[in-house]
Amino acid sequence: MKNTLGNVLTVTLFGESHGAAIGAVIDGIAAGIPVSEEFICEQLSKRRPKGNISTPRREADSFKILSGVFEGKTTGTPIAVMIENGDTHSSDYGEMKNKMRPSHADYTAQVKYGGNQDFRGGGHFSGRITAAIVAAGALIIPALNKKGIFIGTHIKNIAGVEDRSFEGVEDLKNLEGKDFAVLNDDIKALMTDKIEAARKDGNSVGGILETAVYGMPAGIGEPWFDTLEGELSKALFSIPAVKGVQFGLGFGFANTTGADANDQMQIENGKVVTFTNNNGGILGGISNGMPIVFGTVIKPTPTISREQKTVDISTMSDTLLAARGRHDPCIVHRAAVVADSVTAIVLADMLSVKYGTDWLGE
Amino acid sequence: MKNTLGNVLTVTLFGESHGAAIGAVIDGIAAGIPVSEEFICEQLSKRRPKGNISTPRREADSFKILSGVFEGKTTGTPIAVMIENGDTHSSDYGEMKNKMRPSHADYTAQVKYGGNQDFRGGGHFSGRITAAIVAAGALIIPALNKKGIFIGTHIKNIAGVEDRSFEGVEDLKNLEGKDFAVLNDDIKALMTDKIEAARKDGNSVGGILETAVYGMPAGIGEPWFDTLEGELSKALFSIPAVKGVQFGLGFGFANTTGADANDQMQIENGKVVTFTNNNGGILGGISNGMPIVFGTVIKPTPTISREQKTVDISTMSDTLLAARGRHDPCIVHRAAVVADSVTAIVLADMLSVKYGTDWLGE
Amino acid sequence: MKNTLGNVLTVTLFGESHGAAIGAVIDGIAAGIPVSEEFICEQLSKRRPKGNISTPRREADSFKILSGVFEGKTTGTPIAVMIENGDTHSSDYGEMKNKMRPSHADYTAQVKYGGNQDFRGGGHFSGRITAAIVAAGALIIPALNKKGIFIGTHIKNIAGVEDRSFEGVEDLKNLEGKDFAVLNDDIKALMTDKIEAARKDGNSVGGILETAVYGMPAGIGEPWFDTLEGELSKALFSIPAVKGVQFGLGFGFANTTGADANDQMQIENGKVVTFTNNNGGILGGISNGMPIVFGTVIKPTPTISREQKTVDISTMSDTLLAARGRHDPCIVHRAAVVADSVTAIVLADMLSVKYGTDWLGE
Amino acid sequence: MKNTLGNVLTVTLFGESHGAAIGAVIDGIAAGIPVSEEFICEQLSKRRPKGNISTPRREADSFKILSGVFEGKTTGTPIAVMIENGDTHSSDYGEMKNKMRPSHADYTAQVKYGGNQDFRGGGHFSGRITAAIVAAGALIIPALNKKGIFIGTHIKNIAGVEDRSFEGVEDLKNLEGKDFAVLNDDIKALMTDKIEAARKDGNSVGGILETAVYGMPAGIGEPWFDTLEGELSKALFSIPAVKGVQFGLGFGFANTTGADANDQMQIENGKVVTFTNNNGGILGGISNGMPIVFGTVIKPTPTISREQKTVDISTMSDTLLAARGRHDPCIVHRAAVVADSVTAIVLADMLSVKYGTDWLGE
Repeated sequence: MKNTLGNVLTVTLFGESHGAAIGAVIDGIAAGIPVSEEFICEQLSKRRPKGNISTPRREADSFKILSGVFEGKTTGTPIAVMIENGDTHSSDYGEMKNKMRPSHADYTAQVKYGGNQDFRGGGHFSGRITAAIVAAGALIIPALNKKGIFIGTHIKNIAGVEDRSFEGVEDLKNLEGKDFAVLNDDIKALMTDKIEAARKDGNSVGGILETAVYGMPAGIGEPWFDTLEGELSKALFSIPAVKGVQFGLGFGFANTTGADANDQMQIENGKVVTFTNNNGGILGGISNGMPIVFGTVIKPTPTISREQKTVDISTMSDTLLAARGRHDPCIVHRAAVVADSVTAIVLADMLSVKYGTDWLGE
Repeated sequence: MKNTLGNVLTVTLFGESHGAAIGAVIDGIAAGIPVSEEFICEQLSKRRPKGNISTPRREADSFKILSGVFEGKTTGTPIAVMIENGDTHSSDYGEMKNKMRPSHADYTAQVKYGGNQDFRGGGHFSGRITAAIVAAGALIIPALNKKGIFIGTHIKNIAGVEDRSFEGVEDLKNLEGKDFAVLNDDIKALMTDKIEAARKDGNSVGGILETAVYGMPAGIGEPWFDTLEGELSKALFSIPAVKGVQFGLGFGFANTTGADANDQMQIENGKVVTFTNNNGGILGGISNGMPIVFGTVIKPTPTISREQKTVDISTMSDTLLAARGRHDPCIVHRAAVVADSVTAIVLADMLSVKYGTDWLGE
Repeated sequence: MKNTLGNVLTVTLFGESHGAAIGAVIDGIAAGIPVSEEFICEQLSKRRPKGNISTPRREADSFKILSGVFEGKTTGTPIAVMIENGDTHSSDYGEMKNKMRPSHADYTAQVKYGGNQDFRGGGHFSGRITAAIVAAGALIIPALNKKGIFIGTHIKNIAGVEDRSFEGVEDLKNLEGKDFAVLNDDIKALMTDKIEAARKDGNSVGGILETAVYGMPAGIGEPWFDTLEGELSKALFSIPAVKGVQFGLGFGFANTTGADANDQMQIENGKVVTFTNNNGGILGGISNGMPIVFGTVIKPTPTISREQKTVDISTMSDTLLAARGRHDPCIVHRAAVVADSVTAIVLADMLSVKYGTDWLGE
Repeated sequence: MKNTLGNVLTVTLFGESHGAAIGAVIDGIAAGIPVSEEFICEQLSKRRPKGNISTPRREADSFKILSGVFEGKTTGTPIAVMIENGDTHSSDYGEMKNKMRPSHADYTAQVKYGGNQDFRGGGHFSGRITAAIVAAGALIIPALNKKGIFIGTHIKNIAGVEDRSFEGVEDLKNLEGKDFAVLNDDIKALMTDKIEAARKDGNSVGGILETAVYGMPAGIGEPWFDTLEGELSKALFSIPAVKGVQFGLGFGFANTTGADANDQMQIENGKVVTFTNNNGGILGGISNGMPIVFGTVIKPTPTISREQKTVDISTMSDTLLAARGRHDPCIVHRAAVVADSVTAIVLADMLSVKYGTDWLGE
């Protein structure tokens, strides 16, 4: 029961939206991995709000590496990354101290922490904390790439508008440099129109991310409990607003038969492969060498400017709330890089268990 | 990366389908919990194959408690439960040593364990191991009930045939004593017909389970990583054939808006409640006091008697395989009690973290 | 807070002295390690009581491997080892239900488990549980040996009688096959005389074990918390009656100076070695390639037949107790193989973290 | 294998002696604990070097709480504490990049991290990192005090000069405000003379700390592996230079008998107590309600200005080294507050497991 992810390679998060700083400690990462501050910046930039489809809160997300990096490489000791909080409008949130935002964590935090939580801007529950996850992921992703493992996430669905699915590793190139990660560029305007419309309407929309991992070695995962699906899903569910995770056909399996859904097998260039990949690259909790493919659903942003029924916790009475402050009409596109990041952390951890804690730096 | 579930209350599994025994060690469970061997038998009976819709392998699942129970109550020390293997037809599986069953764990086990795995009957990957999970759950469920926490799972969908959803805690009574857990009894025959048909056709079908937890206190879970959703999903994904987990509206959130999907709040009898429960009782990774509701998709049983393309791992060549041996045309109904059991284990663990390791026995 | 040892290679204990069985589950052990039942028997034999210097309770310790071994080798899945309890004289212990044996765990168990513990024969606190540790160690030791890592423990001190210290790896050969492990055979009679005398006197004696590990690679351990010393000591303190652990000079360091105690270094055959080994092969929590050497003190067996002042927990009144039942006047010699075993488990775990979970089987 | 201590209340360390900052993340700490920055300062001051008996490196140790504290109290979310590095003379250490300091972690770090470690000033192995432990402990100690649990450490021995032992809880008052924590004030000059003499001689001395915990409830600890002794010793061994830990009589048990050493029991004011406390308050790995008492030996500071034989790792050749830079002729007195701090962390964690994660803040 900890705010820590991982077994031998771990990431521990800290920070509140309006506190001094947020950050992460990455422990168990191999020594000798080159650290590119530029790449960390690029990754942080992907989750930064942009244009009319995001919150007007704009922060530089300038990070500082406090430890664990020396002469441009990981030392093998814990890396602490800190992102100081700047552009905070704490006064916007005064009303929200006692008025619980529906479908947000305000009330559960109140119960869990007995009223001691830093309520400003969602405190420790703020999506802003995902910047620390992204920074941690950005330390790991280049090392995975060097091992031939590539991760990408695109927006499969926003408010019912669907992108096409991944067709191969070349689709990851297709996503490079995109702030709004769709495979079919024609679909982007349809999606952003939906977001724009929701924003104007004081409303919000949700969607589905699809992530693919190419080059994942077979044999990673455990049969029970620490399955590859279990470890990935646990990590993905900590991205705020995620309410479902499915691998391969996922919930579509309910309407198929074994004969149709089974991934039949063959030898191809001396390697065992499957004709289809309905299982999303995982069988028995363990990677089978095919691409790992999964979908993650993100609910509509709960903070909306429309008036909603809620409660005042100080008086235990019914009240109404129309959110002020800055908020996003959709966070699906901003969450794509977070999905990449938690995936990278989980895979690096599980690979480190199998191959040893030095492997990632070799 | 272990075959262990939990933080302070842990369950460790062991065993292979055709080995000497399977079992579980439950550690960190409070002292003083009454142990009902009769209830354990009842629970084990629920996952036992029955009638034409299941495998002809029939085992008594007679379990033995090796430790941790004294004079009818838990002692507070680790409980080892052992279920000896009886009705094994190992000779059925000779062919399957080298011929990898498509969509099964044969090939991933081969890679992970380098050919040292006990391949007979799926070995450690066999669904039979879930009997040990059920036994562990049966030690915990009565203690949760005593605390006012009640868990139930019904078959929401088999091969496209849908049951109605949970409507209240009284639906759990409705499920009592049912081997085929549906809320709407009229739907049972439609579902079993689908399973029957698949069996006759040498095929298999999948489906969706829906689980509800009533009486769960608010305030349980962590904001990041050890979220309630994350811990539950991790546990659920270790049930063989599970390929997706969703909470509340789940993937349905992609097609809603914040205004429609948000769970607005009110005071009712001095307690904070929500009008709707689209978030399935969890916000910010923490229980909010509403029923916890989630869906789990189970793929069609991969072992089918139809001929399928696969590989022979000893010769690294293409081959064909039509499964012999005994197998289920559908495992959705048998998995319901397993979903209840892992849910009970996860909740008992998370409650023990919050309230202390003695709480469950008080 | 679990009865589990280890990070990626874990050992979980279960069982009570007078229950159905005791045992261990070993998880995360590499696949492909040959399992010798004969060697397990030999190791178990070493801790079995013998002659006049031990308890008359004599058990065959016949173990049964329930899972995780197939065709003579580890499968890579959890290994459950069970040792059924046979020769129990539970009636001997009736008086001890309420009369707390001084310096034993009776009273602390009573408080921790609220009176639900199995009090017969020390229950879960019985030294008998160490047989399961020995069985677990016996699965690992041959694999370490194959890697060139050799572990041995001798009796350094019993009741003030001192054996000489380890002088080199050849001393391990010297210990082979000895039930009473001393390096200087002339000292054995002096020690057993002390034990004999204590037994006749209704008393007991303690002593010190010295363990050496030859062939340990440099670079294993963490700088903080999961130090090699910390992990070893944690494991050693779970051997009943252990009250102190020291590495190298240990408490002797208090009376030296840096100039005298520092292990100066040189190159020998292209390898970095130290002239002395006052640090017992560990610096900064990490192995330095020199032999790992540590001492473990074991207190006199608390159960003695002399009358002692104690309390009756049922009446909360003062009383007297003279232990009946069977007990050892000294357990130092029987604990030597347990020290070897926990050392093997800890090192195998830490090596598996560094080199990966397959390494031990390669 | 992590730089993290604890089960449900965890402390993760980061930082290098000459990097940007050192610090700790404290997770799982209860909400609502008042935080006194003044007390943190006082505690940090205790380990700060002073006078002629310590290194001339003088740092303000001004810490910054980055998260987890709001309006003067813990929020229940992770607390990150950062101490920026100031007074670094990195140039002093140039020679030490390749010349391994005997009995220091230079060589083991070199092997473990493959030469990527930050070698300046001992890097991540520097005693300076213990400032972060002290800061973490200072968040916890007042909460333990409020529960009636009091911890104190005195210098039992420096270079053979002995202080008297603890005689009761009032001795903790005696230690308050002392930078050089002895119970018998007459002994202080004898000890500091030894340190002074060693410094003048280019040498160093070691010693023994004795820690006592008064008011510890009975029933805390596990019988196997996560014993109270095991968890404390594991934590203590991560204090740099610690080479042995003993509870109660410790190594003295080797020369006693059961009749002499057993702690006989009686009822006193309706409570079970022992006449003596030779077991240091712990039986069967579990606290018995008597004071917890243990000794920790600290070796002479390995860095001395005398010339020593060592190796140059860049040329793999023999060389000589006389340490320059600033260093302590003795660190025993500075380590006392660190021993208090790790003790507080371990006990708070184990109490939180037993009583729940909210308990410490109640």
